[in-house]
Amino acid sequence: MGKPIYVLNGPNLNLLGKREPEVYGRDSLDDVRAMAQKRAEGLGLSIEFRQSNDEGELVTWIQEAREKAQGIVLNAGAYSHTSIAILDALQAAELPVIEVHLSNIFRREPYRQHSYVSLVAKGVICGLGPKGYEFALEAMAGLVTAGKRG
Amino acid sequence: MGKPIYVLNGPNLNLLGKREPEVYGRDSLDDVRAMAQKRAEGLGLSIEFRQSNDEGELVTWIQEAREKAQGIVLNAGAYSHTSIAILDALQAAELPVIEVHLSNIFRREPYRQHSYVSLVAKGVICGLGPKGYEFALEAMAGLVTAGKRG
Amino acid sequence: MGKPIYVLNGPNLNLLGKREPEVYGRDSLDDVRAMAQKRAEGLGLSIEFRQSNDEGELVTWIQEAREKAQGIVLNAGAYSHTSIAILDALQAAELPVIEVHLSNIFRREPYRQHSYVSLVAKGVICGLGPKGYEFALEAMAGLVTAGKRG
Amino acid sequence: MGKPIYVLNGPNLNLLGKREPEVYGRDSLDDVRAMAQKRAEGLGLSIEFRQSNDEGELVTWIQEAREKAQGIVLNAGAYSHTSIAILDALQAAELPVIEVHLSNIFRREPYRQHSYVSLVAKGVICGLGPKGYEFALEAMAGLVTAGKRG
Amino acid sequence: MGKPIYVLNGPNLNLLGKREPEVYGRDSLDDVRAMAQKRAEGLGLSIEFRQSNDEGELVTWIQEAREKAQGIVLNAGAYSHTSIAILDALQAAELPVIEVHLSNIFRREPYRQHSYVSLVAKGVICGLGPKGYEFALEAMAGLVTAGKRG
Amino acid sequence: MGKPIYVLNGPNLNLLGKREPEVYGRDSLDDVRAMAQKRAEGLGLSIEFRQSNDEGELVTWIQEAREKAQGIVLNAGAYSHTSIAILDALQAAELPVIEVHLSNIFRREPYRQHSYVSLVAKGVICGLGPKGYEFALEAMAGLVTAGKRG
Amino acid sequence: MGKPIYVLNGPNLNLLGKREPEVYGRDSLDDVRAMAQKRAEGLGLSIEFRQSNDEGELVTWIQEAREKAQGIVLNAGAYSHTSIAILDALQAAELPVIEVHLSNIFRREPYRQHSYVSLVAKGVICGLGPKGYEFALEAMAGLVTAGKRG
Amino acid sequence: MGKPIYVLNGPNLNLLGKREPEVYGRDSLDDVRAMAQKRAEGLGLSIEFRQSNDEGELVTWIQEAREKAQGIVLNAGAYSHTSIAILDALQAAELPVIEVHLSNIFRREPYRQHSYVSLVAKGVICGLGPKGYEFALEAMAGLVTAGKRG
Amino acid sequence: MGKPIYVLNGPNLNLLGKREPEVYGRDSLDDVRAMAQKRAEGLGLSIEFRQSNDEGELVTWIQEAREKAQGIVLNAGAYSHTSIAILDALQAAELPVIEVHLSNIFRREPYRQHSYVSLVAKGVICGLGPKGYEFALEAMAGLVTAGKRG
Amino acid sequence: MGKPIYVLNGPNLNLLGKREPEVYGRDSLDDVRAMAQKRAEGLGLSIEFRQSNDEGELVTWIQEAREKAQGIVLNAGAYSHTSIAILDALQAAELPVIEVHLSNIFRREPYRQHSYVSLVAKGVICGLGPKGYEFALEAMAGLVTAGKRG
Amino acid sequence: MGKPIYVLNGPNLNLLGKREPEVYGRDSLDDVRAMAQKRAEGLGLSIEFRQSNDEGELVTWIQEAREKAQGIVLNAGAYSHTSIAILDALQAAELPVIEVHLSNIFRREPYRQHSYVSLVAKGVICGLGPKGYEFALEAMAGLVTAGKRG
Amino acid sequence: MGKPIYVLNGPNLNLLGKREPEVYGRDSLDDVRAMAQKRAEGLGLSIEFRQSNDEGELVTWIQEAREKAQGIVLNAGAYSHTSIAILDALQAAELPVIEVHLSNIFRREPYRQHSYVSLVAKGVICGLGPKGYEFALEAMAGLVTAGKRG
Repeated sequence: MGKPIYVLNGPNLNLLGKREPEVYGRDSLDDVRAMAQKRAEGLGLSIEFRQSNDEGELVTWIQEAREKAQGIVLNAGAYSHTSIAILDALQAAELPVIEVHLSNIFRREPYRQHSYVSLVAKGVICGLGPKGYEFALEAMAGLVTAGKRG
Repeated sequence: MGKPIYVLNGPNLNLLGKREPEVYGRDSLDDVRAMAQKRAEGLGLSIEFRQSNDEGELVTWIQEAREKAQGIVLNAGAYSHTSIAILDALQAAELPVIEVHLSNIFRREPYRQHSYVSLVAKGVICGLGPKGYEFALEAMAGLVTAGKRG
Repeated sequence: MGKPIYVLNGPNLNLLGKREPEVYGRDSLDDVRAMAQKRAEGLGLSIEFRQSNDEGELVTWIQEAREKAQGIVLNAGAYSHTSIAILDALQAAELPVIEVHLSNIFRREPYRQHSYVSLVAKGVICGLGPKGYEFALEAMAGLVTAGKRG
Repeated sequence: MGKPIYVLNGPNLNLLGKREPEVYGRDSLDDVRAMAQKRAEGLGLSIEFRQSNDEGELVTWIQEAREKAQGIVLNAGAYSHTSIAILDALQAAELPVIEVHLSNIFRREPYRQHSYVSLVAKGVICGLGPKGYEFALEAMAGLVTAGKRG
Repeated sequence: MGKPIYVLNGPNLNLLGKREPEVYGRDSLDDVRAMAQKRAEGLGLSIEFRQSNDEGELVTWIQEAREKAQGIVLNAGAYSHTSIAILDALQAAELPVIEVHLSNIFRREPYRQHSYVSLVAKGVICGLGPKGYEFALEAMAGLVTAGKRG
Repeated sequence: MGKPIYVLNGPNLNLLGKREPEVYGRDSLDDVRAMAQKRAEGLGLSIEFRQSNDEGELVTWIQEAREKAQGIVLNAGAYSHTSIAILDALQAAELPVIEVHLSNIFRREPYRQHSYVSLVAKGVICGLGPKGYEFALEAMAGLVTAGKRG
Repeated sequence: MGKPIYVLNGPNLNLLGKREPEVYGRDSLDDVRAMAQKRAEGLGLSIEFRQSNDEGELVTWIQEAREKAQGIVLNAGAYSHTSIAILDALQAAELPVIEVHLSNIFRREPYRQHSYVSLVAKGVICGLGPKGYEFALEAMAGLVTAGKRG
Repeated sequence: MGKPIYVLNGPNLNLLGKREPEVYGRDSLDDVRAMAQKRAEGLGLSIEFRQSNDEGELVTWIQEAREKAQGIVLNAGAYSHTSIAILDALQAAELPVIEVHLSNIFRREPYRQHSYVSLVAKGVICGLGPKGYEFALEAMAGLVTAGKRG
Repeated sequence: MGKPIYVLNGPNLNLLGKREPEVYGRDSLDDVRAMAQKRAEGLGLSIEFRQSNDEGELVTWIQEAREKAQGIVLNAGAYSHTSIAILDALQAAELPVIEVHLSNIFRREPYRQHSYVSLVAKGVICGLGPKGYEFALEAMAGLVTAGKRG
Repeated sequence: MGKPIYVLNGPNLNLLGKREPEVYGRDSLDDVRAMAQKRAEGLGLSIEFRQSNDEGELVTWIQEAREKAQGIVLNAGAYSHTSIAILDALQAAELPVIEVHLSNIFRREPYRQHSYVSLVAKGVICGLGPKGYEFALEAMAGLVTAGKRG
Repeated sequence: MGKPIYVLNGPNLNLLGKREPEVYGRDSLDDVRAMAQKRAEGLGLSIEFRQSNDEGELVTWIQEAREKAQGIVLNAGAYSHTSIAILDALQAAELPVIEVHLSNIFRREPYRQHSYVSLVAKGVICGLGPKGYEFALEAMAGLVTAGKRG
Repeated sequence: MGKPIYVLNGPNLNLLGKREPEVYGRDSLDDVRAMAQKRAEGLGLSIEFRQSNDEGELVTWIQEAREKAQGIVLNAGAYSHTSIAILDALQAAELPVIEVHLSNIFRREPYRQHSYVSLVAKGVICGLGPKGYEFALEAMAGLVTAGKRG
């Protein structure tokens, strides 16, 4: 299978399923993990799935991915809009990155309509709920096969 | 199968495959149509696939979709960034909309980083090439089954 | 009666009565045409009433009005906010122009609060529904009698 | 006849007819009052017509209208562009409001192109001179008959 | 007791209790005056409680406070956002100032999110309803005892 | 002597001499009036010298000047920066206007660096204290002799 | 007593009393805790009082409050101005929030004049030193009794 | 002679000679065509000269030029300022482009001072009337000889 | 008499009297020099009157004034709006500065409405023609007598 | 031949041919002078061709042209973007002006996309290399024959 | 030797030598530490050299430095551009601060061109690679000898 | 030794030691020259040290450096913030450039926080006084040895 894909989740995503379910759906982050796991297996990929509320810990995980992963699927949550540190870590990682957001951030407040992650991501998927993770993994499968990066 | 999904393409997408292939890939719009067709069939959907360089014609097609379609997949090309008329037509259509872009518009010029289509789309997929159309159709399949709209 | 007044309507106004009736009312564009026709007759005016989704066709109609009309009542819809081409055609027409909007555009999204048409219109009426067309014609009657223009 | 319509005029409108007659016309504010009175009678409405140079007095009159009127026609002059206090009073009044300007403010200086009154008005009429007051009253007649508000 | 605290209220606050009670509560301005009076007495302070719709009158009262008061509690309403004249009067008064707003102005329209009064106030309390006046008086008690100013 | 020059003063100028004397000097407004009076007499001019905290009253005085004065020297204080109503009154007055500020407003806060009065004034004098009134009157003497206006 | 009120403090507040005492006063954070504790007891409330320099830890505490507290008093310090992650956690918490700042942030640098916390807070108190915590608790007592939230 | 140079004209240029002749001169578009034809012949070039009011048609002609022309001289009129679709078509055309405007757009309204065409043009000529077309053709002759592009 | 006042003039002021005399008057710069000389003598001051088109030369003259003058009257012309070097020289000069402009720059183009000189000037006089130099000298006489600087 | 055309060149144009030849071409400024000379002769014009790195010297040359020339062709280089002094000199010159740039400034950095010279030029030519000077002279020939100016 | 100098490094600096070596050089952070150590010894200083990816940990270290260090050399990496919390900690530390960046941040993206650290630093060194640390220590040696702070 | 390093200084730097010594220190520019000379010798470099108040002369010196120098250390003073002509000359010079400022420009007025020189400099040093020149030379030694440029 080769190295895993790191699927990293930022602040407040651990509340998934409890927080505003009419907006974010009723699936918990564990449900998302399971769906992602299953899709990855179908694609011949393994994943490492984590969540943190801490910007520094996310930076460290991205650095770790640099050595141990062959790609990163990232839903950085609110840090997408404010963290240049995460952008730098991603740039240093030299790995293909796909950005995922559960909701369509472009229909939300202005301060959510800019993402530093987008500046380095190969692709961006938003507004499709947990499905977005699956699509990101499928796209990643194509990228890592081709040996290309974003 | 029910009503089709309208897959509409805006200006210059008819040049696909010829125009900057290192950026947009070597698939022509006909290739994309075939891929979309095949995926749609696998999902139990039919599609109506069209392209126009004309803003007014795209508005008219979206109005037509209002009566004849159950969803719209839209790659409005350059009009994404400038057309409030298309936004109005989409709002009037009262159908689920998924927005697709072949390239990651957020890594391009500032005037390409705002999309009026995003304001009404259920989801946005960009930077994933023709694969984006397939993902959009798969997402649409979920939406029209659930009978929900964006 | 002299030359007619051109009453021109922009994109999506053909959906009137069907589209969000709680906002735009239940009158169709044909109903509006009939009301306008009747008021015009009472004022001793004839009208030429048209709709198009196409910016270029609207430009061409305004150019035509330059020769064949004595005034223009214009609801350019979404093109009000984006079309410098329509502004140029209106300036070239050298005719009095009254701008009409069914809804009060100043209570809507920021991108609807600027109108290029306003820069050349003699007067602006918005938020009064189809009545706005009648007032525009009554105002036009005064203007064309006086032989003045905006 | 029911309660009257308050027709309120802001600063410098008392100079009408004297001030730049080539722009604002030769009618005095008394002439406008007479024209408005006559149209109102034809519509089965009574009016209360006033002018003040004082922002606070206009706020107080709008508060008074809250109890004693069934609608407000307002030409707030320069205060349209600067007075949040008048906007607040209008919001508190819970009455239909029609905004009138004698000139087309959108063809004037940038600081005249935003109106706080527009944010709460049902409709806006500008650039049609004293006729604008008559149209506002006719529109108001429809609104108060229907018992609707803006 | 020494000099009183001036508790000054700006435009439309005389409508309190009648205007959008679900937002501003059901207490009238007289009720607020009574609550403030009672709290002031408990703190060993006397108050002078007034309201005006007029910017100039508020300026004059603040100038009067300069001689006759030992502090100012000010809810300038809509003038908070537009009046440099009130700011100047407060700076000239050389007295401690506490700014109060009934609603949380930072969750409202952009034009309500800047306050000239805040530039000179010792403290700001907003969104706590009439309670805000009581807290302002308690804070003022501490300030005038210490002989300090903002 | 002919008609007088109106010398009008805006909000808080009645505090002159008391308010921040290290900034505005120790002369009271009465002292300024006396200095202005004396210089005017030397120039063969009479003056009408007034102060108000009220925007509406200043508008009314400028309207009065339209009939009774041959020129206006105006220190509109804080209203310089916010009052379009005063600008309109000055434009309607059709008289030469000289703007005076005691302090150099360009070395102060950004919101004091724009003046609506400057848009219609013949000349502007600031930062020279009460001397500015004398210079304004001397300049006015030249203007009214020449029969020119700003 | 029911669930406690979480009183959370952001970065650098542990330096209170040592850091620029002429600005922030001589009370340490322990002194503030004691004052808050005492006022809370008088109001029949218990409090949980914490401080962290770490954005992620504050997010986690707010998530914890979601389950264990009935309200949050938050002085997020510098993170008020930059943390969308804290804003998201507060929105997810579905609890009443009162924002406190020791100094009047509106008289400080521009980058301190916007607070993400304010967008979700029921009320805001600033510039009143440690007293602000007491007022926040008293206001919270009213909110949690009424069972309402911001 | 090889492939022709496409000389394309945007909206309202068909009114040339009739519209504001004191600004745009008395030559009709047919006169311009004749002048261009003659200069082209002198340079050993053939031209294809067209005009359209329709953005989509201009896009299509530029796509056609991609196959059939060796260069494009473009006066896109008002679409210069608003059309990203035309910019995209020009980029895809991979041909040298010279932009022409009859008037000096930099002495006109702000919204005419930005051109999307300029972003891809080899050179820009404006303010020199029909002569500009002749210069553009002479410059194009040099470019196509050298086989270079912009 | 003590040290002289440097009266310095920037670019294009040598054209005075020839350039747009209906705007700048018919007096040449020599006439202005003579008027300034005469007024200075009446005030017991000597002047050094110069003009240069060169920014660097003006900087050098201001540096010279630092040693040899007791004040500077400066009409920096176009350099007022663009030269931080002149601002720095003025700050280093540690002398009182009065800024003069012949026309009212606030009624002109936006790029003429900001002056770096104003940031360091004691006072500003504009729109009063050559008289402005006389007033500046009279104000300077007061300043140098008092030994104060701006 | 009459008075000459002044062909003036701003800073760094003396490096032409040496500086980035792949961008600016291999012709030196002397080569450009020779080409311009030759074209001028063919048009029956004489030219005065100069270059300076000094803003003040360029201002002085333009003032000289006022007396001695019948037109100005100006490539002000970097001063195009920053010099209001040059703009003033051009306005005072009352001569037709054609602006030339070797490269297409609209494809370069934002600070190169605004030109003060364009505000007064009759026409603008950019991106066509030394040919631009020839076209400017041919256009100037037409202008000075017609006796018109920009 | 006295207290040490804290040399603190922000996020991603632990990747030095591995990440884009053509940009950041081939020295690892340990190499930098060694070079800094050696230079410090030559200057008679001891250093405490640390790195963290965590904003909160950096804040805490700066607070620690307040007690234990005599100066801070800080390369805050990406947090330079976003962290007001670090700015606050530095201000509270009351120690001289020298800011270091390996690359020239002013030639990079706009969001890297503003640094909160710069607002409180005594000096800034960027673009000089690891040498910058040595220069910072040498400058610090001068500062701590003189007993001055920034 | 090879070619010298040009050390160029802009406007007002000739006042060093006299102008605000508490800010800029007591060293004169001659002292700085001596320090720079000595450090350069220790590094095996020769320097050419000059100052001018004239933008054009600085441009000319940089052009001269193009032929005669192997690097440029530049403190362009106020011209750093306004001169695109200097930027162009530096780009044409094709030499390594180190920018120096005596004070930390990022702690000063906004108009001093942007430098055109920074856009082309290899490194930037500011706020370290004359030491900055020494560090710049040491860095330059490394650059010219390596034969690299910025």
